Amino acid sequence: QRCGFGEVIYGEGKSAALITEIARRLLPQQREVLVTRCESQVAEQVANDFACHRYDDVARTLRLSESPLDAPSLEASSETSSANGSRVAVVCAGSTDLPVAREAAETLAWMGIRVDRIDDIGVAGPQRLLAVVDRLRLARAIVVVAGMEGALPSAVAGHVAVPVVAVPTSVGYGASLGGWTALLGMLTSCASNVSVVNIDAGFKGGYVAGLIASQGDPAC
Amino acid sequence: QRCGFGEVIYGEGKSAALITEIARRLLPQQREVLVTRCESQVAEQVANDFACHRYDDVARTLRLSESPLDAPSLEASSETSSANGSRVAVVCAGSTDLPVAREAAETLAWMGIRVDRIDDIGVAGPQRLLAVVDRLRLARAIVVVAGMEGALPSAVAGHVAVPVVAVPTSVGYGASLGGWTALLGMLTSCASNVSVVNIDAGFKGGYVAGLIASQGDPAC
Amino acid sequence: QRCGFGEVIYGEGKSAALITEIARRLLPQQREVLVTRCESQVAEQVANDFACHRYDDVARTLRLSESPLDAPSLEASSETSSANGSRVAVVCAGSTDLPVAREAAETLAWMGIRVDRIDDIGVAGPQRLLAVVDRLRLARAIVVVAGMEGALPSAVAGHVAVPVVAVPTSVGYGASLGGWTALLGMLTSCASNVSVVNIDAGFKGGYVAGLIASQGDPAC
Amino acid sequence: QRCGFGEVIYGEGKSAALITEIARRLLPQQREVLVTRCESQVAEQVANDFACHRYDDVARTLRLSESPLDAPSLEASSETSSANGSRVAVVCAGSTDLPVAREAAETLAWMGIRVDRIDDIGVAGPQRLLAVVDRLRLARAIVVVAGMEGALPSAVAGHVAVPVVAVPTSVGYGASLGGWTALLGMLTSCASNVSVVNIDAGFKGGYVAGLIASQGDPAC
Amino acid sequence: QRCGFGEVIYGEGKSAALITEIARRLLPQQREVLVTRCESQVAEQVANDFACHRYDDVARTLRLSESPLDAPSLEASSETSSANGSRVAVVCAGSTDLPVAREAAETLAWMGIRVDRIDDIGVAGPQRLLAVVDRLRLARAIVVVAGMEGALPSAVAGHVAVPVVAVPTSVGYGASLGGWTALLGMLTSCASNVSVVNIDAGFKGGYVAGLIASQGDPAC
Amino acid sequence: QRCGFGEVIYGEGKSAALITEIARRLLPQQREVLVTRCESQVAEQVANDFACHRYDDVARTLRLSESPLDAPSLEASSETSSANGSRVAVVCAGSTDLPVAREAAETLAWMGIRVDRIDDIGVAGPQRLLAVVDRLRLARAIVVVAGMEGALPSAVAGHVAVPVVAVPTSVGYGASLGGWTALLGMLTSCASNVSVVNIDAGFKGGYVAGLIASQGDPAC
Amino acid sequence: QRCGFGEVIYGEGKSAALITEIARRLLPQQREVLVTRCESQVAEQVANDFACHRYDDVARTLRLSESPLDAPSLEASSETSSANGSRVAVVCAGSTDLPVAREAAETLAWMGIRVDRIDDIGVAGPQRLLAVVDRLRLARAIVVVAGMEGALPSAVAGHVAVPVVAVPTSVGYGASLGGWTALLGMLTSCASNVSVVNIDAGFKGGYVAGLIASQGDPAC
Amino acid sequence: QRCGFGEVIYGEGKSAALITEIARRLLPQQREVLVTRCESQVAEQVANDFACHRYDDVARTLRLSESPLDAPSLEASSETSSANGSRVAVVCAGSTDLPVAREAAETLAWMGIRVDRIDDIGVAGPQRLLAVVDRLRLARAIVVVAGMEGALPSAVAGHVAVPVVAVPTSVGYGASLGGWTALLGMLTSCASNVSVVNIDAGFKGGYVAGLIASQGDPAC
Ligand SMILES: Nc1ncnc2c1ncn2[C@@H]1O[C@H](COP(=O)(O)O)[C@@H](O)[C@H]1O
Ligand SMILES: Nc1ncnc2c1ncn2[C@@H]1O[C@H](COP(=O)(O)O)[C@@H](O)[C@H]1O
Ligand SMILES: Nc1ncnc2c1ncn2[C@@H]1O[C@H](COP(=O)(O)O)[C@@H](O)[C@H]1O
Ligand SMILES: Nc1ncnc2c1ncn2[C@@H]1O[C@H](COP(=O)(O)O)[C@@H](O)[C@H]1O
Ligand SMILES: [Mg+2]
Ligand SMILES: [Mg+2]
Ligand SMILES: [Mg+2]
Ligand SMILES: [Mg+2]
Ligand SMILES: [Mg+2]
Ligand SMILES: [Mg+2]
Ligand SMILES: [Mg+2]
Ligand SMILES: [Mg+2]
Repeated sequence: QRCGFGEVIYGEGKSAALITEIARRLLPQQREVLVTRCESQVAEQVANDFACHRYDDVARTLRLSESPLDAPSLEASSETSSANGSRVAVVCAGSTDLPVAREAAETLAWMGIRVDRIDDIGVAGPQRLLAVVDRLRLARAIVVVAGMEGALPSAVAGHVAVPVVAVPTSVGYGASLGGWTALLGMLTSCASNVSVVNIDAGFKGGYVAGLIASQGDPAC
Repeated sequence: QRCGFGEVIYGEGKSAALITEIARRLLPQQREVLVTRCESQVAEQVANDFACHRYDDVARTLRLSESPLDAPSLEASSETSSANGSRVAVVCAGSTDLPVAREAAETLAWMGIRVDRIDDIGVAGPQRLLAVVDRLRLARAIVVVAGMEGALPSAVAGHVAVPVVAVPTSVGYGASLGGWTALLGMLTSCASNVSVVNIDAGFKGGYVAGLIASQGDPAC
Repeated sequence: QRCGFGEVIYGEGKSAALITEIARRLLPQQREVLVTRCESQVAEQVANDFACHRYDDVARTLRLSESPLDAPSLEASSETSSANGSRVAVVCAGSTDLPVAREAAETLAWMGIRVDRIDDIGVAGPQRLLAVVDRLRLARAIVVVAGMEGALPSAVAGHVAVPVVAVPTSVGYGASLGGWTALLGMLTSCASNVSVVNIDAGFKGGYVAGLIASQGDPAC
Repeated sequence: QRCGFGEVIYGEGKSAALITEIARRLLPQQREVLVTRCESQVAEQVANDFACHRYDDVARTLRLSESPLDAPSLEASSETSSANGSRVAVVCAGSTDLPVAREAAETLAWMGIRVDRIDDIGVAGPQRLLAVVDRLRLARAIVVVAGMEGALPSAVAGHVAVPVVAVPTSVGYGASLGGWTALLGMLTSCASNVSVVNIDAGFKGGYVAGLIASQGDPAC
Repeated sequence: QRCGFGEVIYGEGKSAALITEIARRLLPQQREVLVTRCESQVAEQVANDFACHRYDDVARTLRLSESPLDAPSLEASSETSSANGSRVAVVCAGSTDLPVAREAAETLAWMGIRVDRIDDIGVAGPQRLLAVVDRLRLARAIVVVAGMEGALPSAVAGHVAVPVVAVPTSVGYGASLGGWTALLGMLTSCASNVSVVNIDAGFKGGYVAGLIASQGDPAC
Repeated sequence: QRCGFGEVIYGEGKSAALITEIARRLLPQQREVLVTRCESQVAEQVANDFACHRYDDVARTLRLSESPLDAPSLEASSETSSANGSRVAVVCAGSTDLPVAREAAETLAWMGIRVDRIDDIGVAGPQRLLAVVDRLRLARAIVVVAGMEGALPSAVAGHVAVPVVAVPTSVGYGASLGGWTALLGMLTSCASNVSVVNIDAGFKGGYVAGLIASQGDPAC
Repeated sequence: QRCGFGEVIYGEGKSAALITEIARRLLPQQREVLVTRCESQVAEQVANDFACHRYDDVARTLRLSESPLDAPSLEASSETSSANGSRVAVVCAGSTDLPVAREAAETLAWMGIRVDRIDDIGVAGPQRLLAVVDRLRLARAIVVVAGMEGALPSAVAGHVAVPVVAVPTSVGYGASLGGWTALLGMLTSCASNVSVVNIDAGFKGGYVAGLIASQGDPAC
Repeated sequence: QRCGFGEVIYGEGKSAALITEIARRLLPQQREVLVTRCESQVAEQVANDFACHRYDDVARTLRLSESPLDAPSLEASSETSSANGSRVAVVCAGSTDLPVAREAAETLAWMGIRVDRIDDIGVAGPQRLLAVVDRLRLARAIVVVAGMEGALPSAVAGHVAVPVVAVPTSVGYGASLGGWTALLGMLTSCASNVSVVNIDAGFKGGYVAGLIASQGDPAC
């Protein structure tokens, strides 16, 4: 397995005991274990059992290791980032898309990949996207997270030459159909460089983008 | 009926004889009759019976009158238009959306309303929309016609302060769902100034926009 | 931005602190801020921070300002209104549609537009609509709010010559499909002057109607 | 079987030979056989074999008998009918709904029940329905045929005290969904006296209404 | 209004105060008021205000009057009923369909129509239906309530010559789709004498059946 | 592979040349090759190349072999069959379901399994099923083919103790949804012994039933 | 009823009293009664009334008898089972599918049929399935339980010659559609030996597989 | 635009004249133009106008240039390929998926990327995939094309560490839903390295995979 990234535990509906047991079994083979969709109470119980841990309560992700965890390179605010040399950009349309975008970013941090995070650049305010185009062009792959009509991936993709991984979110009401409208819009994007993952699948969006960025890594 | 616009004949599935009969009945009460969804062979038969007529074979619309029809003000090409003072802009995303956009434009011409036509400014080529923003700001209402992911109405609406009437088209394949993806996207637009009509409903899009523009008409 | 109306905060899922922060940022640029989908407990906390405020617990809207808010011109009861000269009529089919109709009316009040409110004129009791046709003809745009089969916009539109903005509601059970049956019916309305917004989107219905009415305003 | 009405042949996809064979088998037990969804070429072949026959090329129905067929009491035009004492009214919203309405009327004629036929009274022209309310009140059951938003059954039902059988038609495009929008609207009708049959099911609509009218028949 | 049956209050989401107010307004014009979908706590509060009342906690219906309510003729158990001369039969497939069947029966009782109630005769136990065919043949109309695959109306309809009103219920899981599978099956019934109302619409099923039975009433 | 049955060629969209080539490749390993969904013109071309062949133009199946094909044991008419000892019964609801039932029967004949064929016993004529219950009880598995509301599998299953394989057909219109209503009904059957295959999948229905019957074969 | 298996009580929404009453009525005719979808509190109350009982809190099944219950032959762990001679294998894709797989296994135990249980062999880890192929080949029928994309039944079916009964589960999010994606995938399986039951229908999957295995039982 | 790949013409519904005109406009800026969804008659007319051209009648793609086109490196047969060093593998499940797989391969050839083509390795024959795992591990990205239940991408993804781009096809009938079942299955794949494009979108699948493979190209 060239540049493989180990296994991930899907936390939904698993007890703290079960997560601990699976993580214990995995740790000898991989430096760090990622748990996704992990509620804070469960995370607290699990964390006690491991030397090093990091829980993100927005993303609901838990990272576990026996050696110190790297400080994450991701910067949540769009104003301050000097993301020169970043490998993957993770952008989102509105503030309600944040948890999914953070799950993508934490997944990339777990993979050891540099991340540039940009929030709240939905298409209704077109100048916001225009202001960050140069930063987006530094990335080897871009994760775009959006709910409602899901138009942001098309808009981003028109400005760059790298693969865009679109992640629809279940944000919205009525005709949003719990994320289906965004999913459908992303699948029919008129931009050629867009592929799509499941609704709210921040983990998968981050993972695929991380794999793409790794293809350019001479060490792999 | 203040500034009313007369009746329109929905041509789909009607014989030439039936259309002629209805048009004859309507003409005493209104200067000009519009027939929509009218096939060219049917139009040819109907036209013979009226002093003045205009058939648009892209829009599949037929206009009938006993007095000369105004030369339409609409200009199909985006390059040459000096649309200062235009009342309604009709824009579309791709060349396959053209028949629906033309149906909207012919409807507006029949209403006696000035039109500015702009084609092929889909979101995948973002600079194309930016280049026409000034023209769009001259309109009192904008009809936006788009298929696929239907993102153009949101993108246009972010640049203007007038009502945008979104018309989804059945262009596309697979996840386009015969226009439903565009329709859903337009209904969930994050822009506040967007309302929506039925799939491929160029007539209705044009009619509603024409009514809106007429609200600002001191003669009404 | 000619006759623009400022930004609106979508309150769903936002904390009181976040709403307060955004409203504080917006107030220097606009006289009054509107918050939609705002729960009463959140509204109470936010309101304390502003000199002037008005919370409508049916509409779940909150208006915030540093200068006194105009007394709203809307009158909820259909009996007493002398709505001569009103600009936008907001009607609804049944008493369960009330919250959505009120959200539309509060949005129009925030825009500074005169409103005529008429309730409970669903198609099953045909004489109720006939009794208010004259009042409806005074409006420059009409918002029609209805659930179940969503037939009211067609019925209203047949009596007037101005744009009707139809707002489907999620009222009903079984084949109502959470508002989809009403939405579909409104999109396929056989009346030409009907356009549609998202399910339960009282804000958008009011906003679009307000924009339409403003087109006739010589000050814009 | 009290006041039973014999068997009916569903003609779709059946050969002339097969229809003839089934009709021959049924005729000894019932005075007259009805074939629905029967194409004209098939009908022509079948008719030759029977002493008496009547084919309606709008309804695509064929009636077969060995004894003379009653002249049908139905009158297709709304202007001339003096339908005093009629038992079932069959109304439709637009001219494209005609074939389904005629199938219902022919079914009722085959059942020996008096019919009053009224066309083109869709909700967008509200005065058309008001003009025929008195005629509608003479019926013991009413079949209402409508496509698009399917609002006519609710509108009719509000004016009468007898059962309304609603028949949705597949007329329309886009959000009409091949008759589903009309079907859904009819199922969620806010009028209590409406029940529904399948899309384009003119036969069933007529048959159920005929059965209802027969309940009041002292001979049954 | 020949043999009309007064108005009914749809209780869902209405406060006790509002229901009381509407009922007070209606009582002068009708002997008895029916409230459907009324929770027991609400019913208790409302009942106190009226001289005579009857609440059915399975059907969730409340009947209100100022004069004594007739003892209902309906008998819930299939074993003991001697329903000779009954006017409407109300049958259901399984015990989970009971609340909907009871709502239909209470509606008929409120209309003053004799009812025969038969439970638990679903198609998987075919001898159960065969055992009650004679009783079913005594009715002028039959309400059939069923969830899951909704096959019972077809099976019942094959044994009788009167109209069957089918009421699908939301009972079941997975492919039951909350009642849609039953609804679709009923709409496509191969029996000619079946019409359909909304999912869980016991009120409407009972009301339509009651109207049908009344057509045979010489007093109307 | 104990009692395996060889490969089958799905003929849809394959040329005669391609089918011939694949069949030639398979014949050395299996006594007989089955081609399903094979149009008659294609079948004619293919058949010429093989010593023995049998084409069923209702089922659109083609059987190919180099040694004589067993005369099929199946009897299409329900009157004459003396199906004592039959292994699988194949029943269908109406005459339009015939092609699918025949595809199932031909598949079983190809597997060398005795078949009892019974047609036209749909639930609307309940006595027709009752008349054949004894024959059905002789089978080790039953294939039930039905369109419209798809109620027949439940009705059959209530009379027997063996597995019923339900095959929905795309017969019907409107709410039949091209076979989906039948499929949904079969999946939610209240009988425990029913499993389901794809719409119009006569081959699969026959194949699974044949496998089940083979479980009781001491030779396997 | 040759080798029949008695009646089963569907516990959902039934009170302890009702379950006890039905079970009491059934026990004289069958050795053991199975209750499915039974919550633990209800089970506790019911169990007290019977001499012998077994409640499985993962499957939510309750078995009741007056004579001692056989110790179940099923073994939940895939490591230790020496399932020589087993009759039905019950496999599942992931740990979240466990409750449904257990319901199938308990149903088979109630039928007196030997079971081999194998967990967590989803297609994403292909070597896990390969490792158990020999065990699977010992079964007369296989129940395959899977959520998400539901690919496991096809993968299993490619390795065996017996009927596979596929049970989709509602595990997953977004495009999993509450089990519909798995259900659709199983219905369109390219393997010939797969039939399908309802979402989460562990009982039905087990019951049909048990019936199939019984066909090979010389005692039946 | 680093390593950009020029524009592509979507041929569906475009005339030969229009395609020629667009291609002429594009050629000065890019070495070669790709036209997708181009019918053979149209292609023939267009090709005459260009010095060099290649039309693939399975993929329905047309490549146009003024300088000689590279001989494509792709090899359609799985037997003969010595695909050492290939960059992208394009695999498909069945022979009906071929046109889509070929569109992907032609797109990659147009991008100048080496391709390894492998056909007919659907999950029902598990040994076929196992036989090519080593070849698949040589690729930097894999396009997997599949219809029906769409399980192949998950199965492939379990064997490799690079991104898999899944392309659903509209092959199949009934529950295949024109490709939706495959699309849904791919979106819910339990493998982490799978992203998805639209139904039948061979072009997009190839384009995204080509972009991914280019990320590892030191020249970009
Ligand atoms: N949030 C997530 N969404 C989708 N798949 C996930 C997620 N988290 C983990 N997975 C996948 O689920 C697998 C583990 O599932 P499990 O065995 O149930 O823990 C991992 O190998 C991942 O591929
Ligand atoms: N109730 C509502 N429904 C739909 N859109 C709304 C609503 N309220 C506000 N908005 C829109 O949402 C935007 C603000 O979104 P946000 O930045 O998430 O607060 C505003 O500019 C409005 O266009
Ligand atoms: N359970 C019910 N389902 C459907 N419609 C009902 C129901 N109960 C009452 N209705 C109808 O709703 C109308 C009253 O609605 P409302 O004015 O909201 O109380 C009555 O006239 C009935 O036609
Ligand atoms: N087969 C295809 N499927 C989806 N998108 C395509 C296809 N072929 C071309 N495109 C996209 O469509 C755009 C051209 O659209 P048009 O301007 O209509 O020719 C190209 O830039 C591609 O991104
Ligand atoms: Mg925002
Ligand atoms: Mg274009
Ligand atoms: Mg009301
Ligand atoms: Mg009309
Ligand atoms: Mg029962
Ligand atoms: Mg028949
Ligand atoms: Mg697992
Ligand atoms: Mg193959």
